[in-house]
Amino acid sequence: MVDQTLNCELCREAGGEIVWQDDLCRVLRVRDADYPGFCRVVWQRHVQEMSDLPGVDRRHLMSVVCAVEAALRSLLRPDKINLASLGNMVPHLHWHIIPRWHDDRHFPQPIWASPQRPASTPRADARDAALHDAIVQALAEEHGGEL
Amino acid sequence: MVDQTLNCELCREAGGEIVWQDDLCRVLRVRDADYPGFCRVVWQRHVQEMSDLPGVDRRHLMSVVCAVEAALRSLLRPDKINLASLGNMVPHLHWHIIPRWHDDRHFPQPIWASPQRPASTPRADARDAALHDAIVQALAEEHGGEL
Repeated sequence: MVDQTLNCELCREAGGEIVWQDDLCRVLRVRDADYPGFCRVVWQRHVQEMSDLPGVDRRHLMSVVCAVEAALRSLLRPDKINLASLGNMVPHLHWHIIPRWHDDRHFPQPIWASPQRPASTPRADARDAALHDAIVQALAEEHGGEL
Repeated sequence: MVDQTLNCELCREAGGEIVWQDDLCRVLRVRDADYPGFCRVVWQRHVQEMSDLPGVDRRHLMSVVCAVEAALRSLLRPDKINLASLGNMVPHLHWHIIPRWHDDRHFPQPIWASPQRPASTPRADARDAALHDAIVQALAEEHGGEL
């Protein structure tokens, strides 16, 4: 049995600047001039697919992904949010949360497609502290609204 | 107030062959010779983003997305699953569930990137009835395991 975690970069290192985390997952900022607000949510333990997680863990992960989405929408007011869990290169469960604008570099294509224009219109990014606080607030609102 | 549903193709029509549905969402097959098993899960009502749904609806939608993932894994044994909710062209909440293989047309890139090779190795697709039954079974296992 090969220990997959030995060669996994998301097991060895954080994978970016952590803006929020708990025992189960961490929220990283992705610094990309074309995509202010771009975040990743990484499951702390090495699993490959969403369906490898028990339901309770999947729901926790998606509640964090959606809290990041809500936080980015409230802070940056993008035209659209893109969510994706791919993991073809790094098969350790993680989600991309990408604010999109009609005039960004690839719109309306996914950010992995050929660019549609030379560069995105420069936009202010959210400060780390503001993003952290907005994630905490979104998680509290979700849990407060359902308990 | 503009009625967004008038111009929305996923409000006007199913958007593909329905393999399973309930009152809240439908599972469509995407016929793509490079990507056997490719499915979409479409929210029946017009909303744009995951965070526009109340938590209970988000959880339902993700339980169906993950049931489709589990069904495709058991039927087709892909090397990886890709999940994405983009909606840049059709901003009506829907998920792509895409089985991936190491020798498919775009691997390890997302399917929206430039192809890595001329075509995928031909593979058998899942029959509609088998996919339907595997989705029903995956949903039953999820709910049975948690009630």
